[in-house]
Amino acid sequence: MSSAVILLADGTEEMEFTITYDTLVRAGVACCSAYVPAAAGEGSEKRQYATGSRGIRIMYDAVFDETQFHPTSYDALVIPGGAKGAETMSKNTAVQSLVRDFLAKDKIVGMICAGSQAALTAKLARQPLTSHPSVKAELENDFDYSEDPVVISNGLVTSRGPGTAFPFALTLVELLCGADKRAEVRAPMVFPPNTPF
Amino acid sequence: MSSAVILLADGTEEMEFTITYDTLVRAGVACCSAYVPAAAGEGSEKRQYATGSRGIRIMYDAVFDETQFHPTSYDALVIPGGAKGAETMSKNTAVQSLVRDFLAKDKIVGMICAGSQAALTAKLARQPLTSHPSVKAELENDFDYSEDPVVISNGLVTSRGPGTAFPFALTLVELLCGADKRAEVRAPMVFPPNTPF
Repeated sequence: MSSAVILLADGTEEMEFTITYDTLVRAGVACCSAYVPAAAGEGSEKRQYATGSRGIRIMYDAVFDETQFHPTSYDALVIPGGAKGAETMSKNTAVQSLVRDFLAKDKIVGMICAGSQAALTAKLARQPLTSHPSVKAELENDFDYSEDPVVISNGLVTSRGPGTAFPFALTLVELLCGADKRAEVRAPMVFPPNTPF
Repeated sequence: MSSAVILLADGTEEMEFTITYDTLVRAGVACCSAYVPAAAGEGSEKRQYATGSRGIRIMYDAVFDETQFHPTSYDALVIPGGAKGAETMSKNTAVQSLVRDFLAKDKIVGMICAGSQAALTAKLARQPLTSHPSVKAELENDFDYSEDPVVISNGLVTSRGPGTAFPFALTLVELLCGADKRAEVRAPMVFPPNTPF
């Protein structure tokens, strides 16, 4: 069974988090949400949830810990958007080194929306990438910036916003579990006819 | 400012809940999630979250109470899917009467996926309706069943599944806040080109 750690912070875009987690679970991927505190000391026993960018409070499965979520234990690391949540994650040095570790071990790293800022802070090599348009200016000088809904660059999968969260999540399913599983998961979601993913 | 109460229960499809709540908040609609206990006595002070159909635990804003969430205080009532959550909601007699009250007062009632079962249990008149294909057989004899992604029948707005949750939520935005607000909310979500909603 494949496994994924999906980061969660205060200010995370809750649709991007939820669509990715839920879709991966539908594919049989074991998911763990890991809370990245905005400052040291948060995320203790007393605080068991993150407040999303639009106020939905989601309880996390674990507190982020670089030693627990390494690429020998998980197949994918996902960094959702939401300006404040993505800032917390991308500035976290443990997250930055974990992004590099996952990619170095040929595992998958997904970044969506403002989450793509972590490609910059983790100092990844120039490669194809996309993001939410609001952070394009920060990224376009250091990466081969694309406006495709989902961009795959070896293990790095990037995407644009809530509106691309389904094709992003389904792409992760395909990479982790194969094209048949993607089709199997997609069908009962009942997308409108002519949906382009 | 418009307002909406969005029901939440154990087994609610967390994408359908989150996409609706988040999209309405983006439109400036004041949202309150109300937890419907599966049995009397649940949802007390000690239990502040619902566990979604794919294991995401979402904290609720309030416990459902027929007297608090009446249509003189809220403009819309939303019933998401997820088989177990929708069963809990649709079998709740207070939810059933509230569905009738909202429609009788020309307010909006949204039902998506298995949530459309509440149209049957609330004994609504025959009218156009859709649902997740898995509950079509229960509904097609009593309603003018449609397979359109979103069906509007006066104040009753029904939809099919996670894959139609965005057009469902954007339709609620349009009905509550107008077509300009729908376009304003949709743009920064960055849907792929040629997305049919």
